[in-house]
Order: sequence, then C-alpha cells, then structure tokens
Amino acid sequence: MGSAGTAEETGGEDMPWGEVTPDAARRLLVAAVEAFAERGYHATTTRDIAGRAGMSPAALYIHYKTKEELLHKISAIGHTKALDILETAADGPGDAADRLAEAVRSFVVWHAGHHTTARVVQYELDALGEEHRAEVVQLRRRCDAAVRRILNDGVKAGEFDVPDVSGTTLAVLSLCIDVARWFNVAGRRTPDEVGAMYADLVLRMVGAQGPRGSQK
Amino acid sequence: MGSAGTAEETGGEDMPWGEVTPDAARRLLVAAVEAFAERGYHATTTRDIAGRAGMSPAALYIHYKTKEELLHKISAIGHTKALDILETAADGPGDAADRLAEAVRSFVVWHAGHHTTARVVQYELDALGEEHRAEVVQLRRRCDAAVRRILNDGVKAGEFDVPDVSGTTLAVLSLCIDVARWFNVAGRRTPDEVGAMYADLVLRMVGAQGPRGSQK
Repeated sequence: MGSAGTAEETGGEDMPWGEVTPDAARRLLVAAVEAFAERGYHATTTRDIAGRAGMSPAALYIHYKTKEELLHKISAIGHTKALDILETAADGPGDAADRLAEAVRSFVVWHAGHHTTARVVQYELDALGEEHRAEVVQLRRRCDAAVRRILNDGVKAGEFDVPDVSGTTLAVLSLCIDVARWFNVAGRRTPDEVGAMYADLVLRMVGAQGPRGSQK
Repeated sequence: MGSAGTAEETGGEDMPWGEVTPDAARRLLVAAVEAFAERGYHATTTRDIAGRAGMSPAALYIHYKTKEELLHKISAIGHTKALDILETAADGPGDAADRLAEAVRSFVVWHAGHHTTARVVQYELDALGEEHRAEVVQLRRRCDAAVRRILNDGVKAGEFDVPDVSGTTLAVLSLCIDVARWFNVAGRRTPDEVGAMYADLVLRMVGAQGPRGSQK
C-alpha cells in the first residue's frame, strides 16, 4: 500500500496536512503515515521517518519528541476531519434522508481518497498513549452522535424505520470506515461512485421512503 | 487487544486451529496470532513467537521455516473457514433471503468471535509472499462468488431489488468483515446479537420483501 499512499497523500488540494506548519513538520507527518501504513507503528522508528522525509533524527526531534506524538497528531487530524464531515452533513439542508445521504457520501469519499491515512488512524488506535487515546475516543463519540442525530430525526419525522438506532449508527459508520481497507486506486470504482452507491444502500438500511441519495 | 485475544483464541471448541497438529505447531500458530495482533507482523520476530509459545527458536524452526510461513498458515486457515461459512449458507435450505440472512449471521458471528485472528488475516495481507498472496486472493474471489450467487438468485426470483449486484456483494462482505475491527468482548452486544441485527440490515440493503432473518 506504500506506493499508492505516496501518490495519494502528497498530491491533491484537500490533503488533511495542509494546516500543519512549518513545512518540515508537515513533511514528517506525511512520511510517518507512509511508514506506519507500510510496516506498522511498532516496526517503524523515528529514524525511518526522518529518513523518508530527507531529514536527520535530530531535525525530527525539533518538531516531535516521540513517535507516539506523530501518531497522535495524525490521529487527531484524521478524527477531527471525520467529525467535521459528519457534523456538516448533520447540520446541513434538507430532510433526514438528504442529510444521511450526504453524511455517507462525503464520509466514504474521504475514506476512499485518504485510505492510507484512514488505515493508520483506524488500525493503530491501541498504540496511542492513554491521554491521547481518551481524546480520540471523545472525537469518535461525537462522530457517532452526529449520525445518531440524523437517524433520530428521520425516525421522529416518520421518514425512517429503524428498530435499533444505536446498532444502525454503528453499522453505518463501520460500513463507511471499512472502505479504507478495501479501496484500491487502481480498482474500477472512483471514490464518488462508491459514495453514491453507499448512500443508496444506507437509505435502504434505514427504510427511507423511495429512491434517494443518488440525485446528489 | 492482546489479552482479549488470548482468552478468545485459546478457549472455545470451534477455534480454527483445532485441525493443526502436532500440538506444538498449533501452539505456535496461536502465539503468532497474538503477537501479530499486538505489535504487527513486521515488528514481530520468530523469537517473540517461540517465547510466547514457551519454546526455543530452534523448536519453532522444526515446524515453520519462516515468519511468513506462519502468517500464510493463519491466513489460509482463516480464509478457508470464511469460505466454508459462506458456501454452506449459499448451498443451504430456504429461499434467497433465508440463505443471505444465514450467510451474514454466521459470517458476522465468526468475525466477532475470532476478531483477533480476523484482524491479522485482513490487515496483514500485504505481508504475504507473492505465491501465498495469489492463493489467498483466489479464496477471497470464491467468498465473493458465494455471496454474489445468493444475490443473483434473489434477483432472479423477484425476491430482491439490487441495482448493483457486484457493488452490493462488496458492501455486504465489507460490513461483516469490519465487525472484527470494532467488536469488543466487553461491549454490550454478543456475537449472536450482532449477527441477527446485521442479517436484518442486509436484507433491507437488498430490498427483500417483509421482515426476515431475525426469526432464526
């Protein structure tokens, strides 16, 4: 997954690292994502990361004191972006079906388009320190709450038929997150195509009336 | 995830390693699953694995020549079990909705009950050697074909409404596989409860007529 990651994470306007300054700190984060994705967090050293970024271990240390600090930064940025996507959709225009379709579509597009980052964010949670993990768990609870809010709105409005709101919230998020595992840039579906298909499937899961979602 | 994995993989009658003999070879596989799940494949040495199994590196070498051979064995057993579950359901009694509900239910129960093994099987595919990876890809294609066959049967019989059979097959398998990522033995749902809920959600995804699945 390394080479696909390289092209994916460093190209494109909407990469989540654009906000990280200075440039050296940003390059180190991109290098860390690539290294963690290729070899796993525990098999990666700060020396590996510095080398990938074309820097010395001492130069890395100016920006990040530990390898865990790099993982935390990656995880915090990834989760903040995920939360922003879901809350924007939950607060957006339209009825519950419109908002759910938009939440699924945009969340899937992000996981497909940033699958290398998303894999690191999802699979290395156990490597975070206790305090950092607690912070990330809070962000994950808020992601969950954004989707649950849309489902509850739809049930209240009589638009959705959902016997188990918390279980369905979990399933919807899980379905979207797992796109990061299987998505292949060389595959036959674009991120937008997967997003549209998944929006339709999720509207079916919640028993939304009539065909929706694909009109976006 | 290590401690949960230990209790999970070594207890229970239906563990997938029961078929592996002699006992030392089986113990080494269980140790390898735990080590790979905790630290990742690349951060684990054969010395780590032997130590966990209470054996010497030389004793490990009698059974497995390389670390990759251990991963291959784990992956082959895991994929063979997954395929068996899906083909048994696809060949089972009942109409397409009954068979789809059973495929999802049993596949989910396996991924929840063996989540540590399933994570290793799913997340370390890239670490397999070329030949072994090709073998596993074949098993994955057959898993895909088993689910696709049920969907096609349901469409042909007028039971299901599925605009995109290959995309929906992918989504159904993905939804079930991701249970291995989030499932927590300390959580509030049992594997059977998740299986029943997911069977219902998937029947909705394929537009099956009327409530099904939960009657099992």
